[in-house]
Amino acid sequence: MRQDINNWFISPNGENTEYVTDFFSEIIAQLIDNSSNRSQEELVPLLREDFSFINELEEPHDLAQILQKLSTIYDNSMNASSVGYIGQMDSIPNIGAIVGDLITASINNNMLANEMSPFLTWLEQELIQVFCRWFGFDKRAGGVMTSGGTLANIQALLVARNIKLNSKDGNVYNSSKQPVFFASEHCHSSILKAGMFLGIGTENVIKVKTDNRGKISIDCLRSDIDRSLQEGKMPFAIVSTFGTTNSGSLDEVDEIQSICNQYHLWHHIDAVYGGAMTLSENQKHICPSFEHADSVSFNPQKWMFVSKTCSILIFKNNKQFQNSFRIAAPYTSETNAINLGEFGIQGSRHTSVLKLWLSVYLIGKKSFGKIIDLNMKITKSFTAFVLQNEHLELYTKPELNILLFRPKKRVGQSEKEYKKSLSDFQNYLYHKYIYISLIPWKNEMWLKCIFLNPYFDDNELKKLKEIIEAYFE
Amino acid sequence: MRQDINNWFISPNGENTEYVTDFFSEIIAQLIDNSSNRSQEELVPLLREDFSFINELEEPHDLAQILQKLSTIYDNSMNASSVGYIGQMDSIPNIGAIVGDLITASINNNMLANEMSPFLTWLEQELIQVFCRWFGFDKRAGGVMTSGGTLANIQALLVARNIKLNSKDGNVYNSSKQPVFFASEHCHSSILKAGMFLGIGTENVIKVKTDNRGKISIDCLRSDIDRSLQEGKMPFAIVSTFGTTNSGSLDEVDEIQSICNQYHLWHHIDAVYGGAMTLSENQKHICPSFEHADSVSFNPQKWMFVSKTCSILIFKNNKQFQNSFRIAAPYTSETNAINLGEFGIQGSRHTSVLKLWLSVYLIGKKSFGKIIDLNMKITKSFTAFVLQNEHLELYTKPELNILLFRPKKRVGQSEKEYKKSLSDFQNYLYHKYIYISLIPWKNEMWLKCIFLNPYFDDNELKKLKEIIEAYFE
Repeated sequence: MRQDINNWFISPNGENTEYVTDFFSEIIAQLIDNSSNRSQEELVPLLREDFSFINELEEPHDLAQILQKLSTIYDNSMNASSVGYIGQMDSIPNIGAIVGDLITASINNNMLANEMSPFLTWLEQELIQVFCRWFGFDKRAGGVMTSGGTLANIQALLVARNIKLNSKDGNVYNSSKQPVFFASEHCHSSILKAGMFLGIGTENVIKVKTDNRGKISIDCLRSDIDRSLQEGKMPFAIVSTFGTTNSGSLDEVDEIQSICNQYHLWHHIDAVYGGAMTLSENQKHICPSFEHADSVSFNPQKWMFVSKTCSILIFKNNKQFQNSFRIAAPYTSETNAINLGEFGIQGSRHTSVLKLWLSVYLIGKKSFGKIIDLNMKITKSFTAFVLQNEHLELYTKPELNILLFRPKKRVGQSEKEYKKSLSDFQNYLYHKYIYISLIPWKNEMWLKCIFLNPYFDDNELKKLKEIIEAYFE
Repeated sequence: MRQDINNWFISPNGENTEYVTDFFSEIIAQLIDNSSNRSQEELVPLLREDFSFINELEEPHDLAQILQKLSTIYDNSMNASSVGYIGQMDSIPNIGAIVGDLITASINNNMLANEMSPFLTWLEQELIQVFCRWFGFDKRAGGVMTSGGTLANIQALLVARNIKLNSKDGNVYNSSKQPVFFASEHCHSSILKAGMFLGIGTENVIKVKTDNRGKISIDCLRSDIDRSLQEGKMPFAIVSTFGTTNSGSLDEVDEIQSICNQYHLWHHIDAVYGGAMTLSENQKHICPSFEHADSVSFNPQKWMFVSKTCSILIFKNNKQFQNSFRIAAPYTSETNAINLGEFGIQGSRHTSVLKLWLSVYLIGKKSFGKIIDLNMKITKSFTAFVLQNEHLELYTKPELNILLFRPKKRVGQSEKEYKKSLSDFQNYLYHKYIYISLIPWKNEMWLKCIFLNPYFDDNELKKLKEIIEAYFE
């Protein structure tokens, strides 16, 4: 047995150092080889091969067999590192995050309880304090990390429900009135999910109309609230979106805060994408006063180039949050140590904090600001290109690095022909190693691009413009 | 800028291969050095050092600085790899899982949508089918992976609620009766969390009494259901626990299934720990007929030595599950591709499937069975030791590799003195590089050990026995 297990684990007694060093070295060599030559590889591959090896799971396999299969897996995975990938909000991961995940796996600590992650539990609390400061909050603020923005948004609304319904027990059946909350019609799907999960019903997530820039209409919001009150319902929260997924639109967050104050509603800001603007001294003026909101969710897994998942949920009043939420885990020691599993929607949790800390320690906040500035400059420059090109149309002037555009409909083209022409255009770009998503948006199809990759510079933009111009010649 | 970013990312154009090779090599060398010498290191360190470097986050740092800080982080993290760590359910990670997490981070795919993880979305569905077969389910079964067992249990109960209340909308306020469900008084804290989250209220999670082996009392379960019905409530589910966290007790799952059939209740089996028994040909006879249950949660992150988090949620009827749950994400292309984010409690999700597949591909199912057999053999042998040692008492004969024991209370010892003596005993072991948890259990304190590490063999057991015997001499 000892001989076998030394092929599968790093012996804690140092019996197989040579073997594991070789194992890791070959894996790393392949990884770097793959990651370093991504720009001429397929961007979102279609699966064409035979993957039946996947089911050969009864007996052990060796390194040579693993390397061979991994090569197939690299080739068939989405290629977010490529400079030409300007599709969804999927970023090239920084090497601090990659080695952070590596180390996290090797020490296999568990964010459930202090006993299972003494240093990392402390680090998570410390680093959240840093982000609280960056978002303008004072020392009463705090929070938790979650495995993704959906869980952060759901937990924020759960806490809002418990506090505003004054029930830690969370029994909606006992509520005196039907609880409802409000969000943009273009809010993230996690907000709708929250309606189903929290037992208030998806129909009671009131989707407020947006204007032609994709921002929540303040007038509609007011009248939606008033109507709910007249109908005898119990509004308890408004969700602002600071950077919608589809068009990067920014809700008028400060105005929404005033409405929350007036109606005594919880204000949650979904800043998972746009919150990164606060990292740049040149861009932060477009940020609202986050610190007035009751909760803010933010995803370093997006514009901070941290590998997925890595999300932060901040509460303005950390004590109030903890009191309204805590469910104690009975199987840990009776100590005063903070057990983060008691304060999160998750129990056992992957350590996201080490890779986040390593990413910021490696790159530094100021440099994140510079990358964001570069992304914004490229976006502005591409916007100008779209506006001056007679064949293209723009959805609206982008506020972040997310831009919707498309070739204009030609005279005499049927709706079906036009839809096909958009898809043809996407395909043309794909064969030039450019991936732009084609998404449904307000009942029409648009090309969405996100300038997120720091290797996408003026030179790459020049190439992109030439490729597009060539298409229309 | 290009020069700077080449310190932070793997250039997709191959500009910094030498630099990143060196970066990863040094990180790997340190990692292996640390992991290979764990058995003489602290097991659950107390934090004594000054960690103020954590806040130096404005400017970039180089590899030398990173290696120095990482050394501190290793030294202060819980040491699950050590042979002497027999505390909580925290396992030594296998190298397939470690490199799986490494590769997962480097390709940074997103399990939200097929477009963002074409191969890995397919792989997750395939591998879940494999696990469905291993658990005895037929082809109608399916499911999703979640970031931890808490999310798996919550999602199972959410689906149960939607189906039994016949409401995909999830509005508990509109329910004709108060929904309730039943679980062991020793169920996992995620089950209580589910009560709060789903809007039915923690008070409506009915905790059924257990017998002196920690198993749910079938008589009490029946009378609890009858009482709820008499009180006009709406029972919708029973949760069986196949391996409680504190004592590894196994509920009488097949009997509970009969009750579910009789009362038309959803049956969810929390087999996150004990489900692994099905991997061993020698142990699987103790497993119930999982395939009759409506849903089963299982954690490869525990007894399959996969790094955290890695959980699987299986539904007997995959189509029914999807129909009762799906919330479509509007920002992906209109295709027929399956987008797993629409079927999970999470949206963007860390890829747990690559490390799981790599772990099983590396080790093979049969070898997992052998490791489990070894763990069980050691547990039986230690049980015999505790039973024949006059200074020790056992809670109950263990059914899994989890064992509660303690030094007996001495004549004349006060309750306070006894509690301190247990803590002294734990400390004594700690200084011999053995970590056993001290947990509250049925209003008393017990030492809990879990024989999970495959390096903990007969030889290690002999050492442990000698250390304990020396204490009482």
